[in-house]
Amino acid sequence: MTGDLARFSVNQMTLRQLSLPELTAACVRLGVPAVGLWREPVRAYGVEAAAALVRDAGLTVSSLCRGGFFTTRTSPDDNRAAVDEAAALGTDTLVLVSGGLPPGSRDLAGARARIAEAIAELVPYAASRNVRLAVEPLHPMYAADRCAISTLDQALTIAEAFPADRVGVVVDTYHVWWDERAPAAAIRAAMAGRLHSFQLADWTTPLPAGVLNGRAQLGDGVIDLSAWCSLLDGAGYHGPVEVELFNDALWAREGLVVLAETVARYRRIRESGIPEK
Amino acid sequence: MTGDLARFSVNQMTLRQLSLPELTAACVRLGVPAVGLWREPVRAYGVEAAAALVRDAGLTVSSLCRGGFFTTRTSPDDNRAAVDEAAALGTDTLVLVSGGLPPGSRDLAGARARIAEAIAELVPYAASRNVRLAVEPLHPMYAADRCAISTLDQALTIAEAFPADRVGVVVDTYHVWWDERAPAAAIRAAMAGRLHSFQLADWTTPLPAGVLNGRAQLGDGVIDLSAWCSLLDGAGYHGPVEVELFNDALWAREGLVVLAETVARYRRIRESGIPEK
Repeated sequence: MTGDLARFSVNQMTLRQLSLPELTAACVRLGVPAVGLWREPVRAYGVEAAAALVRDAGLTVSSLCRGGFFTTRTSPDDNRAAVDEAAALGTDTLVLVSGGLPPGSRDLAGARARIAEAIAELVPYAASRNVRLAVEPLHPMYAADRCAISTLDQALTIAEAFPADRVGVVVDTYHVWWDERAPAAAIRAAMAGRLHSFQLADWTTPLPAGVLNGRAQLGDGVIDLSAWCSLLDGAGYHGPVEVELFNDALWAREGLVVLAETVARYRRIRESGIPEK
Repeated sequence: MTGDLARFSVNQMTLRQLSLPELTAACVRLGVPAVGLWREPVRAYGVEAAAALVRDAGLTVSSLCRGGFFTTRTSPDDNRAAVDEAAALGTDTLVLVSGGLPPGSRDLAGARARIAEAIAELVPYAASRNVRLAVEPLHPMYAADRCAISTLDQALTIAEAFPADRVGVVVDTYHVWWDERAPAAAIRAAMAGRLHSFQLADWTTPLPAGVLNGRAQLGDGVIDLSAWCSLLDGAGYHGPVEVELFNDALWAREGLVVLAETVARYRRIRESGIPEK
């Protein structure tokens, strides 16, 4: 039963209720071959210890989230540290969430320009560590406070100033599903080898206060996730498909049960269309 | 002091705490020359009575919100009734909020196509009543449940199938501020005479649960409202500038005080740049 999970990955945040050893054990038990990791819990556990734990469990690391926040709170040193952590964990992909407006600013175009400059500054160091930078557009509802890069076209324009194996993009269904231009941009990215991470989450309403933890279980919302998977398959993307959910209701449940449910939802999306709503 | 308010309009929802007679009295007292009205409170008051009340107070009606919801709950008959109400109120502009996905659907492109068809069906009737249809793009965070038209480009593409004096667009700063393509689209709309309504609200975070009532007082947020006003002035838009705020904190305050504050904020935006944050 693992063949159909060969490209499946679960992001650590999806199962925030599990410790890293619990997460790796759950993945091994359910045949999940890969995990996406987050810097904060990995650093809390110890980067080298986390790398050994995941490696000894036979898991691969599909991505590390996240560098970035170039406009606000993160120093260049911290982003170089994120590159180092990605390399230590054995993943080639560092996801960048770029940051919103600096405090007091109303200059969105300026923030976007600053982000492009900061990424350019980070590229040589990342290249020296064989880590690819994956620019993630976030939904426009985060433009002010989390990420001024709001569309896949914007992310791709930044990435295309560099070789494809150095800077690429993240396609996260939650962030781009509404954008009629996103499918063409995703195909362009995949065909150029710039699609460095593909993440799934579904969209449900009403959105929660703060709009951070509404990323819904696959099949519970309105995104045609099967179509997105087929689109990227057809464009030649054969990399990991990482499920990243932020959801208070899922976090309140037993982690192994949530992972089993997520695996089942993923299988239905890949095999026979999306689950009934 | 009314000269600088010549183009100012306040939307009825901004002062939801006021009855229609209280609203008109407040506008007269503060020199506000125009109001944007909403169907539900107008119908509750009586359409003809509301028309007489506003007319007798010397106010003009900048727009009526709203027709639409073509994909979900509104019948063609109801949208024709909205046209009739606009005509009865003496406004030439009916704002259309188009509706999101039908229940159970994941077909966003299909919803967008259905909206364009439904608007086409409504145009002849609206033309017969000398009412212009103003297609409003809503922020992409409303794509699923309120309005599948998410960008000004999408709205303008729908409008451009018809004469400019029949179908145009709404530019609402809250909905389009994040979109790097919106300024060019707004200029294109204004120069073609298709900019039928210009609405102001500011963007603050965190967003409230349900994301409906976060439309913030002018100057409290991150949108460069002065720049938006200058952009549209420069493109030849000389119509009303309507302030439409949905905000629980503002609704909890005394309506006349909120209107006076709104007028003061508007003056500062128009005269000397946006207020300090």
